[in-house]
Amino acid sequence: MFESAELGHRIDKETYRKEVAPLREALLDTQLDLLESRNCPVIVLIAGMDGAGKGETVNKINEWMDPRHIDTYVFGPPSDEEAERPPMWRYWRTLPPKGKIGIYFGSWYTDPILKSADGKLENEALEEALERIVRFEQMLIDEGALVLKYWFHLSKEKQKERMKKLENDPLTRWRITDQDRKHLKIYDELKTVAEGVLRETSTAGAPWIVVESFDANYRNLTVGKHIQQAIRERLDEKPARSSTLNAPPLKVAIDSTNLLSQLDLTKRIEDKEYDKKLERYQAKLNKLTRDPKFTKMSVICVFEGADAAGKGGCIRRITEAVDARFFRVIPIAAPSEEERTQPYLWRFWRHIPRLGNVTIFDRSWYGRVLVERVENFCSEYDWMRAYGEINDFEEQLALHNFLVVKFWLQISKEEQLQRFEARQNTPYKRFKITKEDWRNRDKWEAYEAAACDMIDRTSTDSAPWTVVEANDKNFARIKVLKTLCERVEKAL
Amino acid sequence: MFESAELGHRIDKETYRKEVAPLREALLDTQLDLLESRNCPVIVLIAGMDGAGKGETVNKINEWMDPRHIDTYVFGPPSDEEAERPPMWRYWRTLPPKGKIGIYFGSWYTDPILKSADGKLENEALEEALERIVRFEQMLIDEGALVLKYWFHLSKEKQKERMKKLENDPLTRWRITDQDRKHLKIYDELKTVAEGVLRETSTAGAPWIVVESFDANYRNLTVGKHIQQAIRERLDEKPARSSTLNAPPLKVAIDSTNLLSQLDLTKRIEDKEYDKKLERYQAKLNKLTRDPKFTKMSVICVFEGADAAGKGGCIRRITEAVDARFFRVIPIAAPSEEERTQPYLWRFWRHIPRLGNVTIFDRSWYGRVLVERVENFCSEYDWMRAYGEINDFEEQLALHNFLVVKFWLQISKEEQLQRFEARQNTPYKRFKITKEDWRNRDKWEAYEAAACDMIDRTSTDSAPWTVVEANDKNFARIKVLKTLCERVEKAL
Repeated sequence: MFESAELGHRIDKETYRKEVAPLREALLDTQLDLLESRNCPVIVLIAGMDGAGKGETVNKINEWMDPRHIDTYVFGPPSDEEAERPPMWRYWRTLPPKGKIGIYFGSWYTDPILKSADGKLENEALEEALERIVRFEQMLIDEGALVLKYWFHLSKEKQKERMKKLENDPLTRWRITDQDRKHLKIYDELKTVAEGVLRETSTAGAPWIVVESFDANYRNLTVGKHIQQAIRERLDEKPARSSTLNAPPLKVAIDSTNLLSQLDLTKRIEDKEYDKKLERYQAKLNKLTRDPKFTKMSVICVFEGADAAGKGGCIRRITEAVDARFFRVIPIAAPSEEERTQPYLWRFWRHIPRLGNVTIFDRSWYGRVLVERVENFCSEYDWMRAYGEINDFEEQLALHNFLVVKFWLQISKEEQLQRFEARQNTPYKRFKITKEDWRNRDKWEAYEAAACDMIDRTSTDSAPWTVVEANDKNFARIKVLKTLCERVEKAL
Repeated sequence: MFESAELGHRIDKETYRKEVAPLREALLDTQLDLLESRNCPVIVLIAGMDGAGKGETVNKINEWMDPRHIDTYVFGPPSDEEAERPPMWRYWRTLPPKGKIGIYFGSWYTDPILKSADGKLENEALEEALERIVRFEQMLIDEGALVLKYWFHLSKEKQKERMKKLENDPLTRWRITDQDRKHLKIYDELKTVAEGVLRETSTAGAPWIVVESFDANYRNLTVGKHIQQAIRERLDEKPARSSTLNAPPLKVAIDSTNLLSQLDLTKRIEDKEYDKKLERYQAKLNKLTRDPKFTKMSVICVFEGADAAGKGGCIRRITEAVDARFFRVIPIAAPSEEERTQPYLWRFWRHIPRLGNVTIFDRSWYGRVLVERVENFCSEYDWMRAYGEINDFEEQLALHNFLVVKFWLQISKEEQLQRFEARQNTPYKRFKITKEDWRNRDKWEAYEAAACDMIDRTSTDSAPWTVVEANDKNFARIKVLKTLCERVEKAL
C-alpha cells in the first residue's frame, strides 16, 4: 500500500510555482461551481503519520480556496456533551451541507488505528470497527457525498528526519508533542495496522489516496490537484448519478397471510381494568426513570403506524408518567431546508439526547422505508439500502447504552374509517382529516406490505419491533406501557 | 409583591374536577391554533420557592397539553460546551421556534437570585444583571415572543410544612435535597431578594405572575388558565402587533460631512512595502493565536462594507495566518427557514465558538441596521431597537472573554464602479455582478447614512468599530491585520 509513497517524490521550487497559479484558479473555480450547484457535500479526511505535514497542507488548501465555504474540524478528547452520545455523533453534527467542504483532521479512523497499534484493540474488534466504517462511508456516498481520504505517508527514516528538523527550529518545536515521540517508537506497529486499515477501507466509492509527504511541494500539489479533479469530475457527471437498481423483489405474496394480517385485532381491555393497569404501569415507569442507574442510559422510543392508529394517545400515556424535565417528543414531518442539505439520518442524529432522558419519536427514520418507499419519494435503491443503514444507526445507539424501543400500531382498515369519520364529526378534537389522509388510505395495501418488510428487516436483537394490536385503544396503550417498562427494567 | 399569595387560596376537589375538563379542552385548542398559525414562540419561566410544586405543575401542563409541541428544559451546572460561551448561550440554543412552547425550569433568574441571597453578589452587580435581563426579555417580546413568568410562592410556615410532608412520604422524600434545606434556612433573605428582583423585572410586556402554591389544585389551575388565556389573547390580537414608532430622526444633515465622507481614501501602500508588512503582521497574528493564553479567549471578527469593498480579500489575509483548525468563516446571507422562526440574533448565537478560536463573520448581525433598514425589510422600530440589542449581545461576548473586532471597509462610489466593471470583464474571477448589486449601488447615500448611524451607535469601549479606508486594497488589508494584532495582543 505504501510502496509508491517511499520513492522520494519531489517537486522543485520553480515547477511548484508554475503549477500553483493555475491550480489555485482551478480550485476556486471548481469550488464556486460546487457552491452554486449545491451538487454534493465534500468530506475530506486527512490522516497519516505524525510530522507528515498534515496541518501545513490543510492550511494550504484553505489558502488556495475560499475559506468561507470550507470548515476544518479537529477532534480532540470529546466534550461532555459528545461523550454522552454514540462516538459518531460528533462527526454527524459537523457534516458539511451540500455545496460546502468539510475537512476532518482526525476522524473515525483515529481511534481504531491508534488503539490497535497500541495493542488496546483486539483484531476482531478492529474488524468490526472497520466494517462499520465502510458501511458508514457507503451511506455517505449513497446519500450523494463526495468522500476524499488522504493518508500522509513517511518512511521511518523520513519521519525521524522531519521530527528532528522541526525540533531544531524554535518556531516549529512546539508542534512536536510527547505523543508524536511515542508514535515514532511504535512506527512499525502503526504502519502495519495502517496498511491493513487502508486496504480494508479502500472502497470503490471512497478509496484511500496515499501521499508521500516528505516533500511539502509534492504533498501540497498532490492533494490540491486531487481535490480539484475529484470535485470537477463529480460536477461534470451528467446526468446526475442515478441510483437504479435491479433488485429481486423483497417478497412474493402467495397467500394473504402476513405479519400484520394475522394479528388478533379483537383484543380488548375493559375500562375498569384499563384504569387499574394504566395506574400500575405509569407508576412503574415513573419509578424506573427515577432509578439512579437511569442517569447512565437513555431511551429512544419510536412510534409508527397508519394515520389515526393512536400514536399520539400512546405517547401521552408515556409522557404523563415521566418527569417533564426528562422527556422530549419529536414529531417528524417533512424535513426543513437545512435538513434537506444533509443525509436523511442527520435530522434524527441531531435529536439524540444526553444520558438520563427519554426521547419519543412520533414517526421517525422509518419514513424512509414507509412513506418515501410507497410514494416514490426516493428510489428503490435508496429505500432498499435504508434497512441496513437504519440497523447500523440503531446498533450504534444500543452499543452506547441507548435503549431503542419501537412500536408499530396496527389497526384495521375499517377501524381507521370509523376514526376518520369520528374526527371529522368532532370539531373540538381539532384533528384535521386532510385529503392526504384519504389518499394514503387508498394505498393501504402498499403501506401494509412496506410495514411488513420493515418489521422483518429491522427487528434486531438490540432493537426489536413490538407490533401492537391497536383497534382497542385501551389494549394498545397498556401493551405499549408494559413493553416499555419491561425493556427499561431489563436494561437497568 | 407576595401579599396576595399568602391568603390561603384553595380549590376543593370537586371544583377542581369540574374546572379541569373544559380547561384541558381550551388548552389543547389554543395550542393547536398556536401551532398552525406559528404566531409566536411561547417562553414560560417557572421559578419560585423550593418545594412549591414547580415540577408537579410543569408535569400537569405537559399532561394537559400536547407534549409533542412543548419542550421542557431544566438547567443544571453548565456542560463544558456551555461553560465556554457566554452564560446566555444555553438559553439561546433552546429557544422555542414560532408555534411552539418552551418551559424553562430554572432560567436566567436563578443565578442572580441565589447568589444575591447567599451574599455572593453585590447589589450593584445584581442591578446590572437585572437590567440586562429586562433588556433581553424586551428583545424577545419585540421579536414577537410571548414571555410568561410564574413565581411559585410559599410562606415560610407553608414551606416548612410542605417539606415535612414530602420528607415523610418515602415516595417523595428523594425530592428534598440538601440545597432545599439550605434554602429554607435563608428563606427570609431569599424572599427579600426575590421580591426586589420580581419588582424590577416585572415589565409591561413580561410581568411576573405570583402564584400561591401550597394548594396544588389552586396552583395548577391558576397557571393552566393563565397560559391558556395569554396565548388565546395573543392569537386574537388583530391585526398582528404592528410596531409603529414615531421616533425623532436620528440625524439632520446640515452639511455633507460625516464619519465616512471625511475619510482620506487616497491612502495607499505600495506593493513592496505591502509584501513586507503583510508577512510581518501575518507572522505576528500566527504567533499570537498560538500563545497558550489564547486558549482562554476567542476572537469574533465582523466585516461590513459596500459590495466590492474587499471584505473577502481581507478575510483571506487573516485566515492565511491562522491555523485552519482554529478559524471558521461564517458568510451571512438570507436566513434559512429554521432561522426565520427565531429572533434575528439567534442565527449568530449559534455560531459563537468555543474558546481558542477565531470566528469571522462576512457580513453579520449588522445587516439589521444596514440592508434591513435601507430596504425596509423590517420596521423603523425594529432597526432602531437593534442598536441597543446588538450592544447588549456584544457586551455579553466581551464579558466572557470574547474579543469583538469590527471592520467597516469604506470605498468611494467611483472605486466601486471600477471594481464592478473589472469583475464583469474578468470571467475567471467568477464574481457575479448581479442586478441586486447595481440596485444597492443606487441607494449609496442611504447605505452611507445607515453605516454612519451604525458606527456612531454601536462603537463601544469593548467593541469599537475600525473604519478602514479601502480604496487601496493593500492599505486596507494591512490596516485590518495591524488592528487585529493590536487588539489580540492587548487582550492576551
